[in-house]
Amino acid sequence: MNNAIEDSNIDITDIGAIYISNFLGGPLSGQLHLNSVVASMLPGMNISILRIETACASSGVALKQATYALSEYDNIMVIGAEKMTSPYIVNQAEAIAMASDRFIDRPGCPIFPAIYALIAQQYMHKYDIDHEVLERVSYINHKNANLNPLAHFYHKEVSMDAIKRSPIIASPLNLFDCCPVSDGAVAIIISKEKRSDRDIRIISSQFTTDSISITQKEDMTSFKAVKLAASKAYRESGLKPGDINILEVHDCYTISELIALEDLGFCAPGEASKLVNNGSILKDGMLPVNTDGGLKANGHPIGATGLAQVYEIVAQLRGEAGHRQVHDPRFGMAHNIGGVGGTASITILGVS
Amino acid sequence: MNNAIEDSNIDITDIGAIYISNFLGGPLSGQLHLNSVVASMLPGMNISILRIETACASSGVALKQATYALSEYDNIMVIGAEKMTSPYIVNQAEAIAMASDRFIDRPGCPIFPAIYALIAQQYMHKYDIDHEVLERVSYINHKNANLNPLAHFYHKEVSMDAIKRSPIIASPLNLFDCCPVSDGAVAIIISKEKRSDRDIRIISSQFTTDSISITQKEDMTSFKAVKLAASKAYRESGLKPGDINILEVHDCYTISELIALEDLGFCAPGEASKLVNNGSILKDGMLPVNTDGGLKANGHPIGATGLAQVYEIVAQLRGEAGHRQVHDPRFGMAHNIGGVGGTASITILGVS
Repeated sequence: MNNAIEDSNIDITDIGAIYISNFLGGPLSGQLHLNSVVASMLPGMNISILRIETACASSGVALKQATYALSEYDNIMVIGAEKMTSPYIVNQAEAIAMASDRFIDRPGCPIFPAIYALIAQQYMHKYDIDHEVLERVSYINHKNANLNPLAHFYHKEVSMDAIKRSPIIASPLNLFDCCPVSDGAVAIIISKEKRSDRDIRIISSQFTTDSISITQKEDMTSFKAVKLAASKAYRESGLKPGDINILEVHDCYTISELIALEDLGFCAPGEASKLVNNGSILKDGMLPVNTDGGLKANGHPIGATGLAQVYEIVAQLRGEAGHRQVHDPRFGMAHNIGGVGGTASITILGVS
Repeated sequence: MNNAIEDSNIDITDIGAIYISNFLGGPLSGQLHLNSVVASMLPGMNISILRIETACASSGVALKQATYALSEYDNIMVIGAEKMTSPYIVNQAEAIAMASDRFIDRPGCPIFPAIYALIAQQYMHKYDIDHEVLERVSYINHKNANLNPLAHFYHKEVSMDAIKRSPIIASPLNLFDCCPVSDGAVAIIISKEKRSDRDIRIISSQFTTDSISITQKEDMTSFKAVKLAASKAYRESGLKPGDINILEVHDCYTISELIALEDLGFCAPGEASKLVNNGSILKDGMLPVNTDGGLKANGHPIGATGLAQVYEIVAQLRGEAGHRQVHDPRFGMAHNIGGVGGTASITILGVS
């Protein structure tokens, strides 16, 4: 919060409202009503503060809602925050599973790694892909995180060999296919008027929903909500996939990164492994993806993740991404999903 | 949802977005990501659905947020829902306490009845009020609920004597000073354009926040956030307390009803007992309050409560409130608070 205020050069009293994104404050910390917790940090301000939750897509959706409120306020803060370590009531796997269907899916298939393992099995079988592609996704994300001082795995060297040899979590997913359990918070400020040359424009922010149970999915190798939200965002922005210079995707599992590249229209179904294998998604490639390390290596503090993606894109579009800076990007896209594609939020940002 | 669709005479496919208010789906039912759960009930629609949480004020705030989105959609549904019976993970008292400060307040003063008992003690001492006034508040609300077929305590006759003799929960609060644990849901539809003569106008919807810990409150006998939100709503609407013909207040405890009448400007501090004793708040009085029975007797399904208030006011303004109809109301106000006044939402509605 303080860093965002300092960076924006505005006074905290110029903030008219605060949108908080958080997923598991209740089940993990026994603390809901976070808007009032934040009000306690700003004594005497008594502004409009609220919390939004749409599982792992909470902060992408919170950003969208905050843009509406620019009709009433000049400056709005959007905070994504999640405290996932030291759980107080239930363990993390049980808490995260609250993003999936309790009644149909969970009795037989309790936690997310198992669900994404089913997805990976289907994808790998359908497109005849082997696990090495997933290992390469993990390797690239860890390499990027090594250039990001704020990443969960900053300065943790990870070799292809270590990734390959990591223990199985839910076949075919290994430890290094899965994002870690992270604490983290991001705060950004959006404004009605342009304030400086460093400002980045929100060109489009769209989200949509789909059924919660995996038994209701037409296709396990693609997320309908992502395709619909992306198509709305492309339409609203007037841009097409080829215009995007930097991309942040929701790689909660390595398989998700492949599916995202396809659902967002960067390649045809089943072709994402080519973008991985030919180096397109590298920091210096045609379409740099997850330059911050992604959920895999930057971390996945759930309620903060979508805003962390926006933070990375803003840093890149401003040319302030340090060692991980890509060459002169103009447009960036953040892809933030909840559950097994039950919610999909797409944000397109551009230099102003 | 179906009743709202039927009553509004529009098609479900004309709904552009859904705002869900729910407080305890995670801690009580192990189910978060409710926007995707609702998407499952509307297969193929894939619209924008999200959840908002600000403790017991969640649905007042959700309604406000939905009004912003009328800039993008013609018709929006707002749902408040809470399943509080048959808890799955923690008990209700522990879950509800997540609306209070975990770190400062809860170790010494764990649950809400105890906090409101402190408030009642201070109020009764400061203004020299005895418990009989609170008993009368309870009696009136139960009497009103007896005319409301949807009330939790519909057709439960409650005598002043039964209220007086009810067991102490946290002195000076008895069982009949406390709202019950209720399941419930409300759905309303808001539209950009007027659709029929039965339409009711949202004249103002405002909310504000205050600190979460009771140790940070300047005054235990008044809620600052309520006074600020009400003053914003009066300013936005151009109305004053005397213009309000029907009032729904958040009587989670009987003492809250007295404080609400004062904070909303219907009388001076310490004078609310007069409005109770002289019959002003009765169904046929000068200012009918909680004609549906209030939280005390209509029930308090937390995430639905603020919308249940709006539902009652709409029914009254339409002249469709049956046996509990008051005479020709023009303007109604709903007062919905979260925690110990950490969030306050005020909605003013009027005939269109």
